[in-house]
Amino acid sequence: MTRVRQIVERMHPYVPGEQPQGGRVVKLNTNENPYPPAPGVIAAVQAAATADLRLYPEPTAKPLREEAARCYGVRPDQVLVGNGSDELLTMLMRTFVGIDDIVVYPEPTYSLYDTLVTIQEGRSLTIPFPEDFSLPPALFAAEGQLMMICNPNAPSGSLTPVATIAELASGFDGVVVVDEAYVDFAPEGSTALPLLASHDNVVVLRTFSKSFSLAGMRIGLAFGHPDLLAEIGKVKDSYNLDRVAIAAGTAALVELAWMEQNVARVVATRARLTEGLAVLGYDVRPSATNFVLARRPGEDQAPVLRALREHGIFVRHFATDRLRDCLRISVGTEEETDQLLAALTAVRRS
Amino acid sequence: MTRVRQIVERMHPYVPGEQPQGGRVVKLNTNENPYPPAPGVIAAVQAAATADLRLYPEPTAKPLREEAARCYGVRPDQVLVGNGSDELLTMLMRTFVGIDDIVVYPEPTYSLYDTLVTIQEGRSLTIPFPEDFSLPPALFAAEGQLMMICNPNAPSGSLTPVATIAELASGFDGVVVVDEAYVDFAPEGSTALPLLASHDNVVVLRTFSKSFSLAGMRIGLAFGHPDLLAEIGKVKDSYNLDRVAIAAGTAALVELAWMEQNVARVVATRARLTEGLAVLGYDVRPSATNFVLARRPGEDQAPVLRALREHGIFVRHFATDRLRDCLRISVGTEEETDQLLAALTAVRRS
Repeated sequence: MTRVRQIVERMHPYVPGEQPQGGRVVKLNTNENPYPPAPGVIAAVQAAATADLRLYPEPTAKPLREEAARCYGVRPDQVLVGNGSDELLTMLMRTFVGIDDIVVYPEPTYSLYDTLVTIQEGRSLTIPFPEDFSLPPALFAAEGQLMMICNPNAPSGSLTPVATIAELASGFDGVVVVDEAYVDFAPEGSTALPLLASHDNVVVLRTFSKSFSLAGMRIGLAFGHPDLLAEIGKVKDSYNLDRVAIAAGTAALVELAWMEQNVARVVATRARLTEGLAVLGYDVRPSATNFVLARRPGEDQAPVLRALREHGIFVRHFATDRLRDCLRISVGTEEETDQLLAALTAVRRS
Repeated sequence: MTRVRQIVERMHPYVPGEQPQGGRVVKLNTNENPYPPAPGVIAAVQAAATADLRLYPEPTAKPLREEAARCYGVRPDQVLVGNGSDELLTMLMRTFVGIDDIVVYPEPTYSLYDTLVTIQEGRSLTIPFPEDFSLPPALFAAEGQLMMICNPNAPSGSLTPVATIAELASGFDGVVVVDEAYVDFAPEGSTALPLLASHDNVVVLRTFSKSFSLAGMRIGLAFGHPDLLAEIGKVKDSYNLDRVAIAAGTAALVELAWMEQNVARVVATRARLTEGLAVLGYDVRPSATNFVLARRPGEDQAPVLRALREHGIFVRHFATDRLRDCLRISVGTEEETDQLLAALTAVRRS
């Protein structure tokens, strides 16, 4: 048996949050958007339902890249598309990480990074976030082939200023990936996209799964230097985005104001959720995302998760030393937030 | 720069056939189906255009796997889904191939295998097909971690009997992948699916891009032993099929007779195309696929491809020693076939 096969056999794969299909549940476990995608997106999906589905899609999703370029003030050759940003993470790892190559990132963060480094037979150099989730100083001295910065970070919800990311990228020899899955929920000026003009080793990732309400459609974007993206594009499956996803993503960007309105609602509800959880005795960190990390110091929250589930409410728990006493709760609608807070009140009283 | 990054930088990626978007062309270059997908598929795509696109899909595409199990007489845990069978090929390589591991296959075949082995830093052990495209005897003595058998083979269109594949799998220590992208166009009894009952090292791949007229939707299936698929599934992106693709694929399997009718039409036209090309002086191998490989021994066909293009007709040419004197021509509609034969007649006269 080959080394890689042994590694895969021993490996614990990344386990996504549960996806109950149908039924009446309050689903606050995988950071989906509680509001629907734009009407133009629904129309675009319907319009894509033609005999042309027999034909391959445009391999580079040109219409989507062009619209993204217009929207984000870059050139189309600075945009690469992925079947969700997860696929872009996979492509980055396959391009830059071989046996014993080093991938640096602060932790806790998106645990898929661990899984992907393992599959590449690389090594993760993880540096713990300090208590306040600011970037750990050791990160600035770290060496490696790739650095992953989830910003705002999951599951902490914390935000690192762009200036700090710039400093990090200037001092790092390899490629710095800024995974901005949640940045639309952060204050304006939080994105690292302006760094592309000055740093040819920065790749910025975006997803349509959160702010654009399109988790079900699988669309991600990578922004970076054209030469760097051309390299990453070599490991891309030829037709990684289907015709419907290309149409949906393009339509979502055209109707940007719809997304921004949904984001504003989520941000407003986030404040109320944070207050409600504080009343229930949770420490809630300021969040720049569409979820909050709520902690009861020293108190394992696994039983609380199970109790909430009996109320039909799904939240997320991570059974690690650092996160055992936390719940990660997605920001739902106002009504869902009421239901969550009511159920949590009941659970904590019982 | 890391070894893998150097390899990717030097690498010539797989280049898919051109995908002209829109315009009136006769597109016979990427083996798409000339007939539309089933009405139920179109309806399923339209029905998937709802607010539920905000939610992640079922990670394993359960409805599609269950329908595939019913359709092909296996259990759902013997089915793994991919974003096209290209993604399944990528997953297979990532699971089984590390530095210097050996992947065995006869050539010429689907050239993506080369690309994927290179990205994994593995080694391709390729054995030339004899003139008649029967499996080369040396293949039966070859050792390696993975063996790829495209059957029917592209670009030759040739078919290896299942009994021969069985013999191959019995003698091979690693995993044998039978890539059946085109098998629906082959005579009944050509599939290696029955081997799953006797060979736990066989993986059979199917795609919806050819017979099911869904190249634009990106759907592939892998069939194999549940333990083997569980390993491969560990390197899968969590949500590799979007909600629309799951719905479309499931609907396509429900309406199997529609696909079979389209296949029958393509097979009939294939016979006429073969005859027409023979009249024009081409040697055409018997094809078990939806394309033919047409050879003018010793005569480079690149100029012919270019001339056909000026008539608005796209076919495929491979600039290798073995294939330089061939054109690979997809079977289109009756009308497209007439246009191709007329244009080729004109080109050859000029």
